[in-house]
Amino acid sequence: MRVDQREADQLRNMSITKDFIMHPEGSVLIEVGDTKVICNASVEDRVPPFLRGQGKGWITAEYAMLPRATDQRNIRESSKGKVSGRTMEIQRLIGRALRSVVDLNAFGERTLWVDCDVIQADGGTRTASITGAFIAVVLAFGSLLEKKTIKKMPVTDFLAATSVGVLPGGDAVLDLNYEEDSKAEVDMNVVMTGAGEYVEIQGTGEEATFSRDQLAKLLELADKGMKDIFDKQKEVIGDLADRIGETK
Amino acid sequence: MRVDQREADQLRNMSITKDFIMHPEGSVLIEVGDTKVICNASVEDRVPPFLRGQGKGWITAEYAMLPRATDQRNIRESSKGKVSGRTMEIQRLIGRALRSVVDLNAFGERTLWVDCDVIQADGGTRTASITGAFIAVVLAFGSLLEKKTIKKMPVTDFLAATSVGVLPGGDAVLDLNYEEDSKAEVDMNVVMTGAGEYVEIQGTGEEATFSRDQLAKLLELADKGMKDIFDKQKEVIGDLADRIGETK
Amino acid sequence: MRVDQREADQLRNMSITKDFIMHPEGSVLIEVGDTKVICNASVEDRVPPFLRGQGKGWITAEYAMLPRATDQRNIRESSKGKVSGRTMEIQRLIGRALRSVVDLNAFGERTLWVDCDVIQADGGTRTASITGAFIAVVLAFGSLLEKKTIKKMPVTDFLAATSVGVLPGGDAVLDLNYEEDSKAEVDMNVVMTGAGEYVEIQGTGEEATFSRDQLAKLLELADKGMKDIFDKQKEVIGDLADRIGETK
Amino acid sequence: MRVDQREADQLRNMSITKDFIMHPEGSVLIEVGDTKVICNASVEDRVPPFLRGQGKGWITAEYAMLPRATDQRNIRESSKGKVSGRTMEIQRLIGRALRSVVDLNAFGERTLWVDCDVIQADGGTRTASITGAFIAVVLAFGSLLEKKTIKKMPVTDFLAATSVGVLPGGDAVLDLNYEEDSKAEVDMNVVMTGAGEYVEIQGTGEEATFSRDQLAKLLELADKGMKDIFDKQKEVIGDLADRIGETK
Amino acid sequence: MRVDQREADQLRNMSITKDFIMHPEGSVLIEVGDTKVICNASVEDRVPPFLRGQGKGWITAEYAMLPRATDQRNIRESSKGKVSGRTMEIQRLIGRALRSVVDLNAFGERTLWVDCDVIQADGGTRTASITGAFIAVVLAFGSLLEKKTIKKMPVTDFLAATSVGVLPGGDAVLDLNYEEDSKAEVDMNVVMTGAGEYVEIQGTGEEATFSRDQLAKLLELADKGMKDIFDKQKEVIGDLADRIGETK
Amino acid sequence: MRVDQREADQLRNMSITKDFIMHPEGSVLIEVGDTKVICNASVEDRVPPFLRGQGKGWITAEYAMLPRATDQRNIRESSKGKVSGRTMEIQRLIGRALRSVVDLNAFGERTLWVDCDVIQADGGTRTASITGAFIAVVLAFGSLLEKKTIKKMPVTDFLAATSVGVLPGGDAVLDLNYEEDSKAEVDMNVVMTGAGEYVEIQGTGEEATFSRDQLAKLLELADKGMKDIFDKQKEVIGDLADRIGETK
Repeated sequence: MRVDQREADQLRNMSITKDFIMHPEGSVLIEVGDTKVICNASVEDRVPPFLRGQGKGWITAEYAMLPRATDQRNIRESSKGKVSGRTMEIQRLIGRALRSVVDLNAFGERTLWVDCDVIQADGGTRTASITGAFIAVVLAFGSLLEKKTIKKMPVTDFLAATSVGVLPGGDAVLDLNYEEDSKAEVDMNVVMTGAGEYVEIQGTGEEATFSRDQLAKLLELADKGMKDIFDKQKEVIGDLADRIGETK
Repeated sequence: MRVDQREADQLRNMSITKDFIMHPEGSVLIEVGDTKVICNASVEDRVPPFLRGQGKGWITAEYAMLPRATDQRNIRESSKGKVSGRTMEIQRLIGRALRSVVDLNAFGERTLWVDCDVIQADGGTRTASITGAFIAVVLAFGSLLEKKTIKKMPVTDFLAATSVGVLPGGDAVLDLNYEEDSKAEVDMNVVMTGAGEYVEIQGTGEEATFSRDQLAKLLELADKGMKDIFDKQKEVIGDLADRIGETK
Repeated sequence: MRVDQREADQLRNMSITKDFIMHPEGSVLIEVGDTKVICNASVEDRVPPFLRGQGKGWITAEYAMLPRATDQRNIRESSKGKVSGRTMEIQRLIGRALRSVVDLNAFGERTLWVDCDVIQADGGTRTASITGAFIAVVLAFGSLLEKKTIKKMPVTDFLAATSVGVLPGGDAVLDLNYEEDSKAEVDMNVVMTGAGEYVEIQGTGEEATFSRDQLAKLLELADKGMKDIFDKQKEVIGDLADRIGETK
Repeated sequence: MRVDQREADQLRNMSITKDFIMHPEGSVLIEVGDTKVICNASVEDRVPPFLRGQGKGWITAEYAMLPRATDQRNIRESSKGKVSGRTMEIQRLIGRALRSVVDLNAFGERTLWVDCDVIQADGGTRTASITGAFIAVVLAFGSLLEKKTIKKMPVTDFLAATSVGVLPGGDAVLDLNYEEDSKAEVDMNVVMTGAGEYVEIQGTGEEATFSRDQLAKLLELADKGMKDIFDKQKEVIGDLADRIGETK
Repeated sequence: MRVDQREADQLRNMSITKDFIMHPEGSVLIEVGDTKVICNASVEDRVPPFLRGQGKGWITAEYAMLPRATDQRNIRESSKGKVSGRTMEIQRLIGRALRSVVDLNAFGERTLWVDCDVIQADGGTRTASITGAFIAVVLAFGSLLEKKTIKKMPVTDFLAATSVGVLPGGDAVLDLNYEEDSKAEVDMNVVMTGAGEYVEIQGTGEEATFSRDQLAKLLELADKGMKDIFDKQKEVIGDLADRIGETK
Repeated sequence: MRVDQREADQLRNMSITKDFIMHPEGSVLIEVGDTKVICNASVEDRVPPFLRGQGKGWITAEYAMLPRATDQRNIRESSKGKVSGRTMEIQRLIGRALRSVVDLNAFGERTLWVDCDVIQADGGTRTASITGAFIAVVLAFGSLLEKKTIKKMPVTDFLAATSVGVLPGGDAVLDLNYEEDSKAEVDMNVVMTGAGEYVEIQGTGEEATFSRDQLAKLLELADKGMKDIFDKQKEVIGDLADRIGETK
């Protein structure tokens, strides 16, 4: 039995609040257990220098935590004057994942800035960020569709992420909270599309190692969890779900 | 009549949600109209080097905005690698204001870190931060009292802040929202104690000037608004209100 | 009686040396008691990006201290790699104050860089900077007038600043030196125009508070001191004084 | 047929030069095809603050490229004043991987600094770095054993890394060079121990996706390549190979 | 004939004002033609980490220019967030030169911070800084002698610097002003002791070259100029001159 | 007799490996005794802003050391976030020296980036860098000649550097290794052209002083060493040697 009484293959409660912040084109608050992330997608009418003049758009992500999102207060990265390696790793992952399900040729020379700000952390902040950021992106494109700025939804498929891991003793579990995560021997983040393809797999023996069999078991758990997350996402975006894939 | 139909001397709706984030010793979400700030107070069991060994505590504040708290997305200060002058000015103000109503000799060699993170901005973010931060500080000390870490509430009086300003045409108004603030000819922030004393007055002719009479009118409006804010604060902190001032 | 035998409403000796440095378009050394600030105004033939193409000019200020301007040597901000919050606060204040008495539409797309470098500090460095910077700006515009680059003096009124404060014991005094300033319970900086209007009022209970009556007393002292400073300024700028206000 | 005539499951030529630089406790030049990395392991007689007083050691890695290691010259990270996200991601990976095969309790309060400096890049620099860094670490511990500073080899198993990927058209291949890597649809880095366990798997659909079958095929190729690398490593470290695992 | 009518071997007018700033232990304003540098020497009662516990002192120098010391305004190094290569080169030179004539064992574990701040520049700022800094150091030690903090003057000999150069056309000249310096084909800075020994020679063909004969001519000119500078220095420091060398 | 048995006027063994790295237009590994520097010259088809539109080219140099090039590991400058004064001084020297023997009007609006990366250090790294960088520059221009991008070799003369110094006891020696250098009382770097003219002389009494006679002796030693270095350079560049000077 897990510390919070869940089954090995059971996700934490997930809640997604649409239009959480009033200014962004797309905004959600995603809650996965006690992890809470504000995901805002902002549309900017230009692209980074390396893309100018190609008629293509761009999506980039930034990730941060409030100083006291965690049990111990962390020094702000703005005070330190630099972004940590962990933060960079996560925001590169989120951006890459989102770009895998968006047709960059379908929304002109625009940039989508996706900000994932963790206001409360209890494990799985990067996977919650991806799952929530996907909704924020769909909503932002929804607002461009409504304003007739674009004609087709540039999102090509659903996208979600979850974590799986091996606890001490060898049990493979789905969707680890902080307490489990900090003890886990193996930690794996999986990003998948609605079609069931992998976008990213990052498995780390936390200064330990794992076998081929453990890998197979972990991927199976991730698969199972993903289905529930996609259902939740569909419910939140409503009619926009039908427009996903229409640029293909 | 004002853009949002308020009277000249009418505050915006104010709402304060206690224990908004689970980890900090004191945490509130304060909403003033559409301005929303998370105020977290964290207790650290040591003081900055300049105070070590004196048996005194310290309170310091940090202030930040989510990139899309505003109408246009702002670049993160962590990405720019430095904190702006505006941010520094505000966090110095919040810290100074809080220290004016806390007995630094009454909670040992501890630091209270007060983080004010604006998640949605519509004018008056610095004054909302002070008003909310005060509650977070009271709650944090409340948790130290409960754990018997300290015996008396180190807070000596209530503390709140609001803005007043002169609109084009010459009307003096209370509690400006963003639209008013961006057009105002004079902008003044007032920080007061429950006893009706000033802690800080910052009046700026925004590249304009103001007369002695205008100054008097503005201070009167601030006075009036302050009473309502103190009532709201009392309601939120409940029984802890009675302990304020007990170190005197 | 004050530490330096002055009356409560008496300014320190003030001396302003014109054309102190040879390269700048406007340059003065201002001495207020033992506080000495070099104020240089430099004309640059372009404006910051946010103003380009609007036919308007800009004025911006920078403030710094030599490391040993003070009793204890301070680390250079260039060595620390960042500008302190105090410095930013002061240079924002100086720039804002100067812009309140200059017609930005009257000198083309030019920037006036006003550098206030404190070479010796004994309290009141920010107010001495404003008083001196005003002269440097008038002189710089004087040199543009002489070269026929502009036809009218863009300065619309005189501008000066001074400090007032409440000493322990409750005496309100004018123009505090360092010794007084470091003990003061309330510290207020007042920036005024020659017409007697306020540009900026910044009053701080230094981790203390102040009453409405004290505020009134402080403003009265500031008023009195200001008149002497304007006289001094007029004397220094000579004939240029007559041209002030001619764009109105 | 691949661009350099290799079979799909064929590694590039690998050469490892021991004692390449004279000062470090362990030093190798590893060449994998045209990729050349200097891996230096330096012993420092203290640990980072978070480990002090625990009797444990630490291993950390840094990774960098000479500006012209690549086809186009890159600006130095020291000139930019910050380390890129890519660099941080790689050096965190190398450090984590090395720690998974070293008993941190077996060499006292010492830090092993492992510097991987790419002097020529042609794809696979991070995996070559891990494979080479492992040897540098073994050599550094070998020198501590020789000086009798430690009594047992703290390395618990062999460690190597390689890349696998899916080329356009769908062919899965082993050990991609730069030309292949820049076109690959899927890119996966695999880090394994001599015992055949995974330490890290990082698979990325480069803004694309991949199926479960492709994943299986990639892992199989990685497995095959790994065996040859371990043979090469054994040959280079000679007698020290026998001491690996002796702390278990 | 030179641009300012001087002979080839003639120094510019030099003036040294003692006790220019009131706070530092030693302070001078040195004027060499139109070049003006404030040199302040501050005593700190500790040494940098690498010297702690050895009973030795340290001397270090910092050099800066006011933004408008030059004909065109320069951006502050504090605003740029870094110190330029030129600045670093100069301050390293000043520190090294001063240390060559001070017995570091003769003033306990103290640091002398020597700040050279150029308020007006017209060529030769680094040599004027050295010549002035030497006086500031002697005065600072004088103040320690007076307070009986030390018993013997740690300065072992006089120290001064000047520049020599080759103008277009081939004339070798002494003490170049800015106009000459910016056209010179060869530029050489010479630092010497009162005993006539070299401390530092830095000769640069400014993207040109120079012959052995030119070198000899330049050194001869430097020699001649140095004698006048030492006379000036002796006059300024008065009785302290007799104590120079007493630790030998 | 010297620590490595050399005569006072004897250079260390020098070896230069052409085309060491495959990507740069010009690349060498230079070894001077145990000092090893990779010198890469990269051609970029544009010039810095201050030269644009003038039809001229530019040469700039960067210098760095691998962290463990030295006996003790140094922290990376990229980790510290800034380039040290020593590094800046050296890279400015290398760039200036190279520009003295290149006709900047003879290769169009291009920049030559010359990277000198010390992989192993045993004294004389800056002079080895200059000697090696010269070859890399010649090779890079050779590749432009071969591609017919330019028609004449822009290099106007040979260029090399060496160090000379005075050891404790007073012996003047040529080409100091690290052990000698760290003890030397005087240290001088000399950069010369093939025609025997000086480009740069930097002599430093390392917190000591030196006489005119010692200076003469040092320059004589440098002269002698230089001839051998030019022979070595000629041998390495082969036929390109004949093209040097053809733009004159």
